[in-house]
Amino acid sequence: MQKKPYISMSVIRRLPRYYRFLVDLDRRGILRVSSKELAEKMGFTASQVRQDFNCFGGYGQQGYGYAVHQLREEIGTILGLDRVHKCILIGAGNLGKAIATHISYNFAGFELIGIFDRGEQVVGQSLAGLTVLPYGNLRSFCAENKPVMAILCVPHTATESIVDDLYALGIKSFWNFSHYDISLKYKDALVENVQLNDSMMTLCYRISEIEE
Amino acid sequence: MQKKPYISMSVIRRLPRYYRFLVDLDRRGILRVSSKELAEKMGFTASQVRQDFNCFGGYGQQGYGYAVHQLREEIGTILGLDRVHKCILIGAGNLGKAIATHISYNFAGFELIGIFDRGEQVVGQSLAGLTVLPYGNLRSFCAENKPVMAILCVPHTATESIVDDLYALGIKSFWNFSHYDISLKYKDALVENVQLNDSMMTLCYRISEIEE
Repeated sequence: MQKKPYISMSVIRRLPRYYRFLVDLDRRGILRVSSKELAEKMGFTASQVRQDFNCFGGYGQQGYGYAVHQLREEIGTILGLDRVHKCILIGAGNLGKAIATHISYNFAGFELIGIFDRGEQVVGQSLAGLTVLPYGNLRSFCAENKPVMAILCVPHTATESIVDDLYALGIKSFWNFSHYDISLKYKDALVENVQLNDSMMTLCYRISEIEE
Repeated sequence: MQKKPYISMSVIRRLPRYYRFLVDLDRRGILRVSSKELAEKMGFTASQVRQDFNCFGGYGQQGYGYAVHQLREEIGTILGLDRVHKCILIGAGNLGKAIATHISYNFAGFELIGIFDRGEQVVGQSLAGLTVLPYGNLRSFCAENKPVMAILCVPHTATESIVDDLYALGIKSFWNFSHYDISLKYKDALVENVQLNDSMMTLCYRISEIEE
């Protein structure tokens, strides 16, 4: 496999948005797109778009634009979406149910292979094509199926001990919906935090600003 | 009311995290905290913390740290959390149910006053202490209760027409869970997008990087 070029994290964080837009163009049979058009749709400048794509080789031709399918494939490969990373979900409450059913796992490079909960009333329920398993089955399930990532939809107070369990079972990547800061204890863990309250507080700030 | 100082959006986006941590310290009866301790918990440098707080007056004393309660109140005021912004939720599917029940609205400066859905099987259900109302009631509800923000938990294809309706009813702030880009059509809308698939794709990239 060809060695990937170095791409900064700030460019990486913009790639999913380009990717989604390119998938949409590709599905609609559109073959080429200009940096200007991409910039307008993304809310960036055309120069920013060209700079971002130059990081990994480009595919743009002056006055001719980017080849949609080729650029989509390239960004997908950079993001690792062409592989399938097995993941499990811990916590099948309201949030866990939403995350199990709402997310396009395959689109984002993952396969959801197991859902676990401690609550007797939830275990055994069918969710996103899987049966919710008791938390006690976690060890044997991980030994057999080797998931690499866990999605945490559990209460703040339960998160630490669950992360301890998962880390001991070899899972070092987390998509974390709780406020517990995994990286403080596990420096080598890969963590993407989704802080919904923080996003809402930022919106509160912006609304308050225009009220004044 | 005292005029607020100018604070950049990058500082603003860090404030909710400080705020959550300070609330936790305050609840535990801790009176003072150093920039070093805050930095460690936040994953920033102490100099970054001091710089952030200097933007709005500081409250730090050399060798003595920050007054927890005072700093918490100040950040809360800057974010506008001391006011209550009425909001409504559109879409009471799995995601809408999770968002209705999982979010600490009061903590984040909001009050959820209405939930709307188009589906007959969902309308009339009880959710987060409210009864899910038919979408057709939106106009009269907004005229009477004047919500300022709408949370969108609806399918991508339905988002545009719903935003058209809401904007016409005077709602110009959106917490958007769909991929529809509201700002392209409504330049003056305040939008916080929550792109869960993008967050997951970024995690996919980071996992793929260490696999190689």
